[in-house]
Amino acid sequence: MDLSRREFARMAGAAVVLPSAAFAQGGKKVRYCVVGLGRISLQHFMPGTKMGSLGEITALVSGHRDKALQYAKEYGVAESSIYSYEDFDKIADNPNIDAVYIALPNSMHAEYTIRAANAGKHVLCEKPMSNTVKEAEDMIGACKAAGKKLMIAYRCQLVPTNLHARELVRSGALGTIQAIESSNGFNIAKGEWRCNRKLAGGGPLMDVGVYSLNACRWLLGEEPVHVNAYTSVIDHDGRFDEVEENVAWTMKFPSGAVAACTSTYGAGMEGFIRLHGSKGSLTVTNFGYSGIHLQARINGVNKGDPPRIIDDLEEGKDPSQFVRESDYFSKCILDGTEVGPSGEEGLKDMRVMMKIYESAAKNG
Amino acid sequence: MDLSRREFARMAGAAVVLPSAAFAQGGKKVRYCVVGLGRISLQHFMPGTKMGSLGEITALVSGHRDKALQYAKEYGVAESSIYSYEDFDKIADNPNIDAVYIALPNSMHAEYTIRAANAGKHVLCEKPMSNTVKEAEDMIGACKAAGKKLMIAYRCQLVPTNLHARELVRSGALGTIQAIESSNGFNIAKGEWRCNRKLAGGGPLMDVGVYSLNACRWLLGEEPVHVNAYTSVIDHDGRFDEVEENVAWTMKFPSGAVAACTSTYGAGMEGFIRLHGSKGSLTVTNFGYSGIHLQARINGVNKGDPPRIIDDLEEGKDPSQFVRESDYFSKCILDGTEVGPSGEEGLKDMRVMMKIYESAAKNG
Repeated sequence: MDLSRREFARMAGAAVVLPSAAFAQGGKKVRYCVVGLGRISLQHFMPGTKMGSLGEITALVSGHRDKALQYAKEYGVAESSIYSYEDFDKIADNPNIDAVYIALPNSMHAEYTIRAANAGKHVLCEKPMSNTVKEAEDMIGACKAAGKKLMIAYRCQLVPTNLHARELVRSGALGTIQAIESSNGFNIAKGEWRCNRKLAGGGPLMDVGVYSLNACRWLLGEEPVHVNAYTSVIDHDGRFDEVEENVAWTMKFPSGAVAACTSTYGAGMEGFIRLHGSKGSLTVTNFGYSGIHLQARINGVNKGDPPRIIDDLEEGKDPSQFVRESDYFSKCILDGTEVGPSGEEGLKDMRVMMKIYESAAKNG
Repeated sequence: MDLSRREFARMAGAAVVLPSAAFAQGGKKVRYCVVGLGRISLQHFMPGTKMGSLGEITALVSGHRDKALQYAKEYGVAESSIYSYEDFDKIADNPNIDAVYIALPNSMHAEYTIRAANAGKHVLCEKPMSNTVKEAEDMIGACKAAGKKLMIAYRCQLVPTNLHARELVRSGALGTIQAIESSNGFNIAKGEWRCNRKLAGGGPLMDVGVYSLNACRWLLGEEPVHVNAYTSVIDHDGRFDEVEENVAWTMKFPSGAVAACTSTYGAGMEGFIRLHGSKGSLTVTNFGYSGIHLQARINGVNKGDPPRIIDDLEEGKDPSQFVRESDYFSKCILDGTEVGPSGEEGLKDMRVMMKIYESAAKNG
């Protein structure tokens, strides 16, 4: 196993659509209805889809018609394909929509996923999947009943650098994984909807800690059997009346691998994950939109061999991750293939996050 | 607060003796009896003391008289000042010994500390302090009763780079500390006494995880109020029949700061600690004998100010940390000043480590 970065990208091509795969589908595109015109839609998903090969924006849902009209013009969306939240269900009658992209506060993910499925549309929903396990289960149920695909927008799972990291873990190149560390957080501004429990479901764990949790599970390929956590609020400045400011949690996996993670809304915290195996270790820095960086150090086979250093920088810049995300889901729809970061994947994270909150509540 | 590295080293001079302080004590030196001629004594403490200004090696204790004779010659130690473990108590009659340096397996720390104190000698004892809390308490009691000083060899607490890190935390330069991560470990060879529970008291937690634990407590200046842990054994190859291979633990401090740590004997794991404050963060890499490296990123006072980057590399190389450690303890003895990394400091770590093991045993 001595894959170069380039060789690996070629391998990963089976799972990840790169821009060069344009028009591989005979020109057919998936037509997206974007639900919620916030920053991630406007600055990331919509330009990403436009730059991609397999999708196009054909409808918008917003509470602000003026704003929607402006972007409709930019993306060539017909005025008749602009919806409010109230008349959202009318998308069922619009044959020009294949799928919806849901970028709303977490509490609305379940409702709009279910309504979209009932309208006969595929769903790409932002993370975290929902506010509760029950909602996540209902979302999966609705999409299954409608025969529609459900993807949770875990864009990190599609990044070649992360796929390379996973290959190093899963191939045994690092030996048996013993311990993992991961953290992700930021210093949140006052007045963010993310600090409203009803809208957000929780604090930094749900919003950014979920990247650490998902990376641990996804890279290792195991589900934690034990979870323990502490949460705290230090800054009593109105931001954390409803959600935690800090969280630290540990997990134990069936193989015996242990993980220690933190997340915060009270400090700038550069995201990272570090895995330690009996033969080598790797660090991936950053769960952000660009510049995800992998460093691995793998010991030689024979004692005295120099370690093999792998230093792998993601080639693309924003919005490349969203080009990839949009085209990936489109390809799954066009080809009728299984979605990797599926609803079931989102549900697994939801289950662990609820255990983390239960443990923290018990631990005080 | 905008201390340069150089200014800080000057400030820290009060607490840390640097080589330039030579002969500040009118030429009087502390005379050390080295107990245990293993690697840390021979390669680190003894050369460090020789290179320093305030101590000298005047006696040796070993089970191998030939080996002791060889090093006695090198260090100018009189043959009459070579002891076996059996006749160790005779050091009481040797006026040429002021203090002992104990570098034995952990299980022997308590016995030899107490015997040394009873012989009227000061004690510098390697970490971890002991195998049990009771032993640590007895060590403190014996030294107190004898009116002798007890230091635990937490050399990291004397490193200017770490003192700089602590100043950044304690001065509030990083704002309120929200979350901490730390890890330290290595891949242990077969047959090490460190894998023998009777000798070592525990596994990687006691041996190298203690650096992470001590760094969390010492930098933050708080004692954890909640502790939770998981341990595991993955490699059933004879190394971990008696001690854990991996440990992950979380701590919650009175301020609300949370910490997540890991340690292992099953993987190469570069030591580090990262603290995240509301105004900035810092990372110290490495708990080793040299090259301890501090990186801090502190936000500007006004929005838009560029962050202040501090990148601080320890100046010295091995055995500089041991020069410092030896001279520091000597200075405490010569000046009659309090020891920073005292027996009480070691006891605090012992108490937390026992809680970690209790929690892990309960968590399964």
